[in-house]
Amino acid sequence: MPINAQILDNPKSDRVRHIADLTRTKGRERSGRFLIEGPQSVREAVTWRPDVVRDLYVEVSQALEHPRIISSALEKIVETSQDATIYVHYCTGDVMHRISPDAQGIAAVGNAESMHAGADDVELGKNGRAPQIAVFWQVRDPGNAGTVIRAADAAGCDAVLFVDDCVDVLNPKVIRSTAGSLFHLPVLAMSTDEFFTWTGDHNLDVWAADVYGTEERKPESLPAVLADKAAVEAPKAVLFGNEARGLEPDILTRCGRIVSIPLYGKAESLNLGTSAAVMLMSLSMSGHVERM
Amino acid sequence: MPINAQILDNPKSDRVRHIADLTRTKGRERSGRFLIEGPQSVREAVTWRPDVVRDLYVEVSQALEHPRIISSALEKIVETSQDATIYVHYCTGDVMHRISPDAQGIAAVGNAESMHAGADDVELGKNGRAPQIAVFWQVRDPGNAGTVIRAADAAGCDAVLFVDDCVDVLNPKVIRSTAGSLFHLPVLAMSTDEFFTWTGDHNLDVWAADVYGTEERKPESLPAVLADKAAVEAPKAVLFGNEARGLEPDILTRCGRIVSIPLYGKAESLNLGTSAAVMLMSLSMSGHVERM
Repeated sequence: MPINAQILDNPKSDRVRHIADLTRTKGRERSGRFLIEGPQSVREAVTWRPDVVRDLYVEVSQALEHPRIISSALEKIVETSQDATIYVHYCTGDVMHRISPDAQGIAAVGNAESMHAGADDVELGKNGRAPQIAVFWQVRDPGNAGTVIRAADAAGCDAVLFVDDCVDVLNPKVIRSTAGSLFHLPVLAMSTDEFFTWTGDHNLDVWAADVYGTEERKPESLPAVLADKAAVEAPKAVLFGNEARGLEPDILTRCGRIVSIPLYGKAESLNLGTSAAVMLMSLSMSGHVERM
Repeated sequence: MPINAQILDNPKSDRVRHIADLTRTKGRERSGRFLIEGPQSVREAVTWRPDVVRDLYVEVSQALEHPRIISSALEKIVETSQDATIYVHYCTGDVMHRISPDAQGIAAVGNAESMHAGADDVELGKNGRAPQIAVFWQVRDPGNAGTVIRAADAAGCDAVLFVDDCVDVLNPKVIRSTAGSLFHLPVLAMSTDEFFTWTGDHNLDVWAADVYGTEERKPESLPAVLADKAAVEAPKAVLFGNEARGLEPDILTRCGRIVSIPLYGKAESLNLGTSAAVMLMSLSMSGHVERM
């Protein structure tokens, strides 16, 4: 579609600098906003969480008489955004590159405050499924954090909880790694004590995903647990530990079950993202098939 | 332990340049050798495939009167290598960094020829398990290729097959991403026709992991297949497609089953590494539990 709006063309303007600043923690804290980069993330944001999106920045080409959005996929995202109160700004390739080298022609600025879900925003057991929450303790790597949010979404979890000192979920690397899933389900941050209080209040079993267990209690093997219909169908929060250190013993002792993924070959371990996907997906799949 | 051998200290020497060249395809083709970087990969290589390792390069510190290997973990790897005919070379930090910035103090050079398994090297159904092979068609990304080898290893697969035009498994990025699993099971490369001939000769069912299926045949859902004891215990090769394009219709029609991983939330897809881990691990777990 032809575009008549004024085109942002100065990569050195204050406005553009402030947007680019949102890739850094300081920039996000100062402004209370965050950056969403690339067609997939922006599309999912305007589709599922238009309430958090303030501004949309789209690259246009000025090669023709009338400037045009550089692809029909991006045009469609802009159209989707028109139902909500989202301000659309057109900009040159230079400006887009300054906003983010990872934008691929589109970026959005969101309101951090409306993105932070509260514990009350979690609706447990939607669609008649057994409630299942994915919980991550002290996850530090942005790529891992994004991957586990995506896995929890695929498994149909009701929410993702980041417990204790985790990476900021509004870090652009986290958002990119979620492939849009950040906008599909509530993602909360809380302390360890708040987590155990909350799961207690909501009658959720807490399962620790852990290879070693404690001295008193060895982990149960995932396939044995999957064969236990009552266990699979129990409302639960599945807790995964830090990438390098796993879960601490005093957290393990507070969990109702400790479950480990068996390794059948010579591999020593699975990484956090793979462990989360295998455990959450296999629990969901077991809950969805009538066993003989 | 004190070290008396001569220490490689010239990062510009021909020897060091040739080793560093192994990170590139040309360097590997010219020499018939490949590079293994970092403690985990090198340890697994000297432990499980000492026959392919020719030379070991270990960083020493010269800060003390006698040069010393920079950590006890590296010392242990050197000790492990002593049972095989592996030449150990000590080198300075500068030389090690020139060999590979990812070496973390240790690197090895292997013989490419002895690493390329033949179809006869595959021992199906070890340990009394149902034979299971993981197969990847046109996988192009080194990180993905490494991740799927690691997942196949964890699931106890008998071998990994790379079919048609895939990334070179001796690419250092692939090796790093396998976290040592490259040395745990046979990894073969073959053409599409060779693959179907080989699975036919070995009475392996071929299952395609695919979301869409063909016009004539929609995919079966993984949990339904997992509930079918005969299917789970059948000797099989599970075939995964290219990261972006999946599998082509004329390949799908040659497969005995088409199986898709259900997505329960709003996520549109899982990436290749996660899909492979979920499908291979859940098949292995189902094969290991006596169902009621």
